[in-house]
Order: sequence, then C-alpha cells, then structure tokens
Amino acid sequence: MADMTKIVLDEAELPTHWYNVVADLPVPPPPPLHPGTHEPIGPEALAPLFPMGLIEQEVSAARYIEIPEAVREVYKLWRPAPLYRARNLERHLDTPAKIYFKYEGVSPAGSHKPNTAVPQAYYNAAEGVQRLTTETGAGQWGSALAFATAQFGLGCEVWQVAASFTQKPYRASMMRVWGAEVHSSPSELTAAGRAILAEHPDSPGSLGIAISEAVEAAMADEDTKYALGSVLNHVLLHQTVIGEEALLQLAQTGDTPDLIVGCTGGGSNFAGLFFPFLREKFAGRMDPHILAVEPSACPSLTKGEYRYDFGDVAGMTPLMKMHTLGHDFVPDPIHAGGLRYHGMSPLLSHMYELGLFEAEAIDQTHCFEAAITFARTQGIVPAPEPTHAIAAAIREAEACKDTGEEKVILTALCGHGHFDMAAYDAYLSGQLVDHDYSREAVADAMRRVPVIEEA
Amino acid sequence: MADMTKIVLDEAELPTHWYNVVADLPVPPPPPLHPGTHEPIGPEALAPLFPMGLIEQEVSAARYIEIPEAVREVYKLWRPAPLYRARNLERHLDTPAKIYFKYEGVSPAGSHKPNTAVPQAYYNAAEGVQRLTTETGAGQWGSALAFATAQFGLGCEVWQVAASFTQKPYRASMMRVWGAEVHSSPSELTAAGRAILAEHPDSPGSLGIAISEAVEAAMADEDTKYALGSVLNHVLLHQTVIGEEALLQLAQTGDTPDLIVGCTGGGSNFAGLFFPFLREKFAGRMDPHILAVEPSACPSLTKGEYRYDFGDVAGMTPLMKMHTLGHDFVPDPIHAGGLRYHGMSPLLSHMYELGLFEAEAIDQTHCFEAAITFARTQGIVPAPEPTHAIAAAIREAEACKDTGEEKVILTALCGHGHFDMAAYDAYLSGQLVDHDYSREAVADAMRRVPVIEEA
Repeated sequence: MADMTKIVLDEAELPTHWYNVVADLPVPPPPPLHPGTHEPIGPEALAPLFPMGLIEQEVSAARYIEIPEAVREVYKLWRPAPLYRARNLERHLDTPAKIYFKYEGVSPAGSHKPNTAVPQAYYNAAEGVQRLTTETGAGQWGSALAFATAQFGLGCEVWQVAASFTQKPYRASMMRVWGAEVHSSPSELTAAGRAILAEHPDSPGSLGIAISEAVEAAMADEDTKYALGSVLNHVLLHQTVIGEEALLQLAQTGDTPDLIVGCTGGGSNFAGLFFPFLREKFAGRMDPHILAVEPSACPSLTKGEYRYDFGDVAGMTPLMKMHTLGHDFVPDPIHAGGLRYHGMSPLLSHMYELGLFEAEAIDQTHCFEAAITFARTQGIVPAPEPTHAIAAAIREAEACKDTGEEKVILTALCGHGHFDMAAYDAYLSGQLVDHDYSREAVADAMRRVPVIEEA
Repeated sequence: MADMTKIVLDEAELPTHWYNVVADLPVPPPPPLHPGTHEPIGPEALAPLFPMGLIEQEVSAARYIEIPEAVREVYKLWRPAPLYRARNLERHLDTPAKIYFKYEGVSPAGSHKPNTAVPQAYYNAAEGVQRLTTETGAGQWGSALAFATAQFGLGCEVWQVAASFTQKPYRASMMRVWGAEVHSSPSELTAAGRAILAEHPDSPGSLGIAISEAVEAAMADEDTKYALGSVLNHVLLHQTVIGEEALLQLAQTGDTPDLIVGCTGGGSNFAGLFFPFLREKFAGRMDPHILAVEPSACPSLTKGEYRYDFGDVAGMTPLMKMHTLGHDFVPDPIHAGGLRYHGMSPLLSHMYELGLFEAEAIDQTHCFEAAITFARTQGIVPAPEPTHAIAAAIREAEACKDTGEEKVILTALCGHGHFDMAAYDAYLSGQLVDHDYSREAVADAMRRVPVIEEA
C-alpha cells in the first residue's frame, strides 16, 4: 500500500460519530455572554434561532456524538472523501517530505461546508422547521445550505452580500438550481436591509449586514430558523468527519503526521481536520506539530486580541471570547472570501491560548503562486482559501529538501476553485496585489469592542 | 453490499488495458479515404498530425491494448471514478427501477475528456513532440488537454471559438492555470484565421475554423502535433476505461444492466461506457439494451445520412464514413456545446448500422428539467451534455413505475456543470428555448458532401 496516490474508503467505513474535542480539553472554554447583561447565557437563549438538536451539541461535553443515519446517507453522496498523497508535487519540489491532502472539493457544493449544512438541515427538519435562512459572501456556505435543505425538503432563503451577488453570479445560480431563494443584501425584505438602503442606496453590503437580515427573517417566522456555516462549536463538531476519515486513511499508509496545516477563517475546516489527530496526540499515539494559516489581510489569530466580542457587525449576537480584530473591522477585499471574518471560532481561540496549535499569516500573491504549482502538478485547481495551507505545506517541504528530513505533512484541500477563476485571471495577469491589515483600522475597531470584567 | 450508494474501487483495481471493440465486430469498419483521390489511406497519411503510438491504436485490430504505466499514474489523480446508485432520484420518482451512473466529473478538468487527453499527451511526449495544438468550443476539451500536457511537460496551444472565448472566459482561465496558451479563433496567428478575419472582422468563429487553425499551426512546426478530443478510434479506445471500471463496480452490486444510455456528440463518452458491456453481451453474459441520446438540434444519428464526409468545415481531413448532417451544417446554439458536432464517430456510425445500439433525440428544455430533478435529489449539478442521458434514464425509470419492472439502468454522467451555470440561469428564468434542426439547412449542407462511389 506504500505507493498509493489516492486512498479511498468504502462507504461502510464512513465514520459513525463526530468527535467533540471539548471533552478532552484540560480547561473548559469560557461561556458566551448575554450582549446586554454580560452574564453567561444558557442554551435556551439560542432557541429562537437554532433547533434543540444543535443547541445540545453546541454545549455538549460528550466525547462522541453519533451521526444520525439520515445524515450519513446524505454524506454518502460524496463521503468518504479521498486522501491524496501529492506525489507529483513532491517530485516537482524534489523533497524527501511526504505531502498528504484531504480533498473536500468532491462534495456537490465543492467544499467542506456541506459536512455541517447537512446535519443542520437534518436537525431542523426533525424538529418541524420549514425553512432556513442564512447569509453568504462569495457563496460557498449559501450553496452548501441550498444543497442540504433540498435533501430534507426544507425551504432555504439566502442573503448574499451585494458585491458578490453582482460580480460572482454563478454561486447564486447554483443555489437556485437546488431550489433556494437568493437575495442581494442589503434588501428591501428586512428592516435591517431597508435601513441601510435608505442611507446608502448603492451599498455593496457586508457579511455583517447579511447576517442581520437573515437573523431578522428567521426571528419573524415561527417555522423558520437560522443557520451559521462556521465559528460555532456544533459546526466544528460536524467537520470532524474530515479528520476521522483522514486518520483511517493515513493508517493505511503506515505514516503518521509530523505537521498538520490548515487554513483558517472562522476555523471550521482546520478544526475538522486536526481535532481527531489532537485526540491521538493527547493519547500519546502521535505528536504532530499543528499550524493554522490565515491571510495577512485578516490575521485574527496572529494579530487580534483575545477578548469578548460580538460575532456580527450590529452587535446582535452573544458575546464570545475569541481572537478578534474588532467586530466592525472590514478587511481589504482579498480573493479568499471565506477567510475574511473578523474573529476566530471561540473554541479554537481558547485552544490557541492553551498552546495546542500555532498560527501564521501569508499574503495572497504567495498563496496563488503555490496554487499554480499545485494545479500544474496535482491537477486540481484549489479554491483561494486552501491555497494558504498549500503555500505553508510547500514551504515546509522545501525546507525538508535542505535538512533531508522525511517529514509527513498533512493538509486539507477544503474546496475547488471552479467558481474563483477570476482570481486566477487576476494573478496570472499580474493584477493581484497583497493587502496587509491596517493597524489603524483594527485599533479603531477594537475601541468599539465592549470591555468585559471577567468573573 | 446491496445497499450501497457509491461504489468505489481502490487504485489497485484501475484497469490495465483499454478494450478495442473493433476486434469483436462481425464486419470491419470502412476505411478513411484521401480527401483528394478518394482512395483508402494508410496510417502514414496521419503521421504529420499524430504520433505513431496513437496511429497504431487508430488502426489496431488487437482486442486489448495495455495502458502505459505513466498514463495509469496520471489516471490515479482521479480514477477509478465512482459509480453511483441514484437512490434519492429513484425514491423521488417512486420507481422500482435501479439507476446507476458512472461519474466522470471528478477529473481535474471536470469531464471524461482527460481519459484520452492524458494518453495523447503521453504518446506525443514519448516520441519527442514538444507541443500540442487543438481547438475547443466551450472549453471542455481544451482544458482537458491543458491539464494533460502539464503532466508531461508539453506546451499546449488552444484555439477557442471566439464566441465562447468571449462569453465563457473561465474555461480559458483554467487552461492558463495549467500553463496553456489560449487564442480566440479566428486569430491573426494563422493563414486560415487571417483569411476569415479579412472577410469577417467580427467573426464569432466556429469549431471548423478553430480546427483549421490548430491543424495549420501543428503542420507549421516539426516539434508540434495536433490532438483531437472525440470521433477517432483511439479516442474511443481510451474512453473504455470508463466501462471497464463500471463493469467491476456493477459486479459488486450483483446487478447487470438492462439498459445502458449515454449522450452522444462525437460519441466518445457513450462508446467508452458501453463498449466493454457490449463485449460481455457478445459473450452472452448479459443482454443490455443500448441507447444513444443526441440533441434535437443536432441529430446526426437519427436524422443524418450514413455517407463519406469530412470531419471539418474546410474539408481538410480525410473522408470518413459516418452519420452526418453535412460538414458545413451549423446547428443552432444550444447549451450542450459538446454535442454540436455535424457528424458521428465513424466507428459508432458503423456499429449503429450493424444494429448494435439504438438512438433518439431530445430537446434541451426537457434535458434541463431532468437536470434540475437530478441536482435536487443527487446533489451533483450535471453538465448540459449528460442531461440528455439523464432525461432518457428518468423517462425509462418512470415507465417502470407503470410496468412494475425492476429494470437496471446504467448511464454516464460525463461531467459537472460548474462552468455552465449561465445555461441553468436561462432555464430557470424561462429564457431557454428548444431548437429543432433545420431540414433545409441540412439538405443544403448535404449537397456539399462529396458523392463517393464505394468499391
């Protein structure tokens, strides 16, 4: 088996449980706080937006949570996903390192997002919810939820940031193919949208505005709830199916990872890959170095503060302790739209403070350079987000060439770039520029983060 | 194993040989003729355009041809491809029929085309060729060849029909990511292109013009050869890897096909799926009904004449006996660009005359209706081409609901629709119209088909 290029699993080997890393942490994560009182909130505070099945997972301390059979049936439309040994890339780099990547682009929506969209649709449907609302930027999450809701006969309404809605119409087309309604945000359909439009008729929108619209629409209708595609504990939980499969697959090769590297926006893909490996590390069965890579334009882990902050621009969500650049910080436009979130998952932030993984930031031109090398060797054209992890993996493999180390590198290729070709055009024509984050803009945004006296 | 949704094979089970159906035909196919003398031509006539490795396959009578190890290594980047049981679609249709589909959208280029692009690049590289030229319409073939040439360090120059080059820029972007040069055709780079531009500066181009440009460029440079993505025997041969895998996969389920249905343009995907099953039928091990589905706008099999005709508009290629609508017939624009060829593969045409399969034509709105049903149940958004086969499969499965027959239907989903979302937009907004072929236009084109006195 040592010479495999692609390790596949039969669907009988699809994991039966998600892994909840919270059960194995030496210190529990800090609780979310009420946005008004700053007191810890209980699960019931989330009930207007989420079904109980998901809220229970959000606060669960159980080590394993069974994947419902109906969810596993839908997962089988593309899972288990392949694990690749990047032999062509290794040869091109002339490195003694072994590079493995877990490929999530085989899902119908082309990314890892359906791993959580499907159970979210399932638990809502199981509790009688008729319709889900959500926001989306470039459209990865919106299309994943549109696919998932179609599987369970739910309605789906997506508010897409106006700039993307206009400039990148094809992800919205895909959502409509799966039966979703897609609105440009800000829209006339909500009070939040109308208020923005009254002041800025040509507003390009923002994720924060779109969240406000989707939440408002969900609150307005008893049969409707809201779905979020990253950041929350239950989302990270669902994504652990990635790492559980990768563990089984890597075991077939006889290799154990020396380095696990993933890209981080909200953090769900990275978490999904490494949590099961961290469990093995806790158990003393392996000792991988674990690395998060974020864009230089939005470096929440490496340059943010670990503070209680809001998840949205308007300050409607509970306060969560996380690495944040300030809830109204707007990063420069970069092509990895999925990594432009001002904060980091609270669970990952807590684990970062515990020293359980490291982080660094990389510029987008460097990432696209790595993406071209990857595409020409391995064939797959990556989405802009995972190019951050690829760039770091290539750098590490190149370092091994100097040291002679046969390091085993594991990364996640969380999606294909079929809807991101304009970004590649920009890179290949020399139009792509790097954006660092603005210290002034972050300092300004941080001034509007509430000061919380912790108990 | 009976309840599987997706049947995967380990890469150790990747077929080692292509199957050459010519070896098992009761009557050999008619030879190609010289375009000037109308005399049968030998393999040497093809040498200026193709490497000997491919020419030998073009005229081979051997039953099996070994897949070179280097080709198998590249195939492993995505092969073996999954075979799916379309359980969700079956449930939705409430049919007793079983629907299986072999999915080729997992290839880097997103279609079955790399199955032949890779060996074509390999045999050229093995004979010292430095660069390949080709034409492409919407870009499926051009992107497949760009991917394949990158794998073997060859240059790649693609002439893309101007209308597609302008309106659907992202397939060209993908070709550039893989390192190809892409020109809008007609171009100033060739005499053929300049001649057209002199008369029609705003020419939208055509596949016929683009072929002329690519052939001219290949002829002009000793180190350069030309590659064709369908129609020819060696292309059909390479695609049999699809059917060989499907045979292994279906065997795991215990089912044998009652109906095999595929879409046909040049015919390579359909041939690749059914040739290995036809071998089993010849051997008495199964007895599937075999059905080709073509678009109503370009019905070469069902409405064309079986005549010697040219493969290109300009009449530069050898004359091949095939079902043709006339080499200068231009079908109305439909979204299944890959099915807009005026003729049918000569080998398939011969086999059609021998009664080895049947054919029918379907309108594009009917196909897109089927595509939406498929996408909402199975998740995958199909390319417009395979929706023809899906529409027929759905109709057959619905018929089984009336008869109670548990028919086993096998089809090929030869590509995803990620670069075809504009077509879905048109359908969902009610803008899509059907085009029948024009009897007058075909009759007119057929008048320019040479009259050959057969020996």
